[in-house]
Amino acid sequence: MPLTLARRGLMFVLSSPSGAGKTTLSHMLLQAEQNIELSVSVTTRPARPGERDHVDYHFIDKPQFAAHVAKYELLEWAEVFGNSYGTPRAPVEQALSAGRDVLFDIDWQGTRQLKASCAADLVTVFILPPSAEALRQRLLKRGQDSEVVVASRMSKAASEISHWAEYDYILVNEDLDESLTSIRAILDAERLKRERRKVDLAALVERLDKELISTGINPSV
Amino acid sequence: MPLTLARRGLMFVLSSPSGAGKTTLSHMLLQAEQNIELSVSVTTRPARPGERDHVDYHFIDKPQFAAHVAKYELLEWAEVFGNSYGTPRAPVEQALSAGRDVLFDIDWQGTRQLKASCAADLVTVFILPPSAEALRQRLLKRGQDSEVVVASRMSKAASEISHWAEYDYILVNEDLDESLTSIRAILDAERLKRERRKVDLAALVERLDKELISTGINPSV
Repeated sequence: MPLTLARRGLMFVLSSPSGAGKTTLSHMLLQAEQNIELSVSVTTRPARPGERDHVDYHFIDKPQFAAHVAKYELLEWAEVFGNSYGTPRAPVEQALSAGRDVLFDIDWQGTRQLKASCAADLVTVFILPPSAEALRQRLLKRGQDSEVVVASRMSKAASEISHWAEYDYILVNEDLDESLTSIRAILDAERLKRERRKVDLAALVERLDKELISTGINPSV
Repeated sequence: MPLTLARRGLMFVLSSPSGAGKTTLSHMLLQAEQNIELSVSVTTRPARPGERDHVDYHFIDKPQFAAHVAKYELLEWAEVFGNSYGTPRAPVEQALSAGRDVLFDIDWQGTRQLKASCAADLVTVFILPPSAEALRQRLLKRGQDSEVVVASRMSKAASEISHWAEYDYILVNEDLDESLTSIRAILDAERLKRERRKVDLAALVERLDKELISTGINPSV
């Protein structure tokens, strides 16, 4: 029977400029890993075609959003172009207590707010494109945007990227499979950090200690 | 052409009580990984049958050891049962500057000395046995020691283990292959830490920034 030590879950943040591969990598990670779930944000913006309520976002109205804020039910929130976005606190707390990890697909502003309130549980990864040309090609390939919109996203990317130094780990996404391997290595390593497993490790060591001393005294047993 | 960012190497410490699998795992890691080399200690104790000079240890005499200490040429050193052991500084510095990682198979006392002098480069892993019985079985299986010696090693193990909380990562070694995977994940993740790649990442971001701004202004280029 393998010895599974209970631990508190961790909050795993992936940030990047649009087009650097963050959303694709998030999906790949959720497919590949058992013990991690996506944090679903609340938003006041209307659903876009294809977006599913409670899967992509929880779509709520402005009074509902204001009530969440007033009751401190959001871990972080922001207003972008007149729409509000936020991270509900309760599902995150539940997952962490149950030893499950939570994935956050958020920008540097959200990350900064999480750092202020949940630093001990937080692991942050910033994904960089290998070159501006690679970013441009990926944005064009999506086919969602005109070349002019792509150019404006590129300008915005520069200001996103300027926050890379606020993150724990930096990934240059040249190849999606290699990047997924790196992201999973970071997750595996962080799960082995002593800081996250203090209580259960202390219990294991106490048991080992008793066993070792009794075996040492009584070698033939 | 993959984009390889230069970085400073890191110092990777594996510690454990005798019999928990540290030496086996060190060998497996050196076999599996290209970019890591073992730090070879100097010692004044005589070579045991099968031990090779400059591979397992650099075997030196007491005046030579004293000269190393006097010239601050050892990163850490200790005396155990009248024999001196130490880690030569120069090969470690050379490897780190060249972006190669260095593996240390040392105990908590050596680790503590390294932490005092090289904290920023250091990543420390402590390997625990899953149970005292598993440790006893592994020590007996080696066939090197009588059951009485095994019992005394078990008592010593308890005092080694009492230092687990001074390490960054804790591994419970139930299965060697799984443990190797975990050790490699820790190494991969630590190589992606922003802190170790500040200079080269800053240069990459500066280049991206220039490219993005010029592409943003001039979208048709």
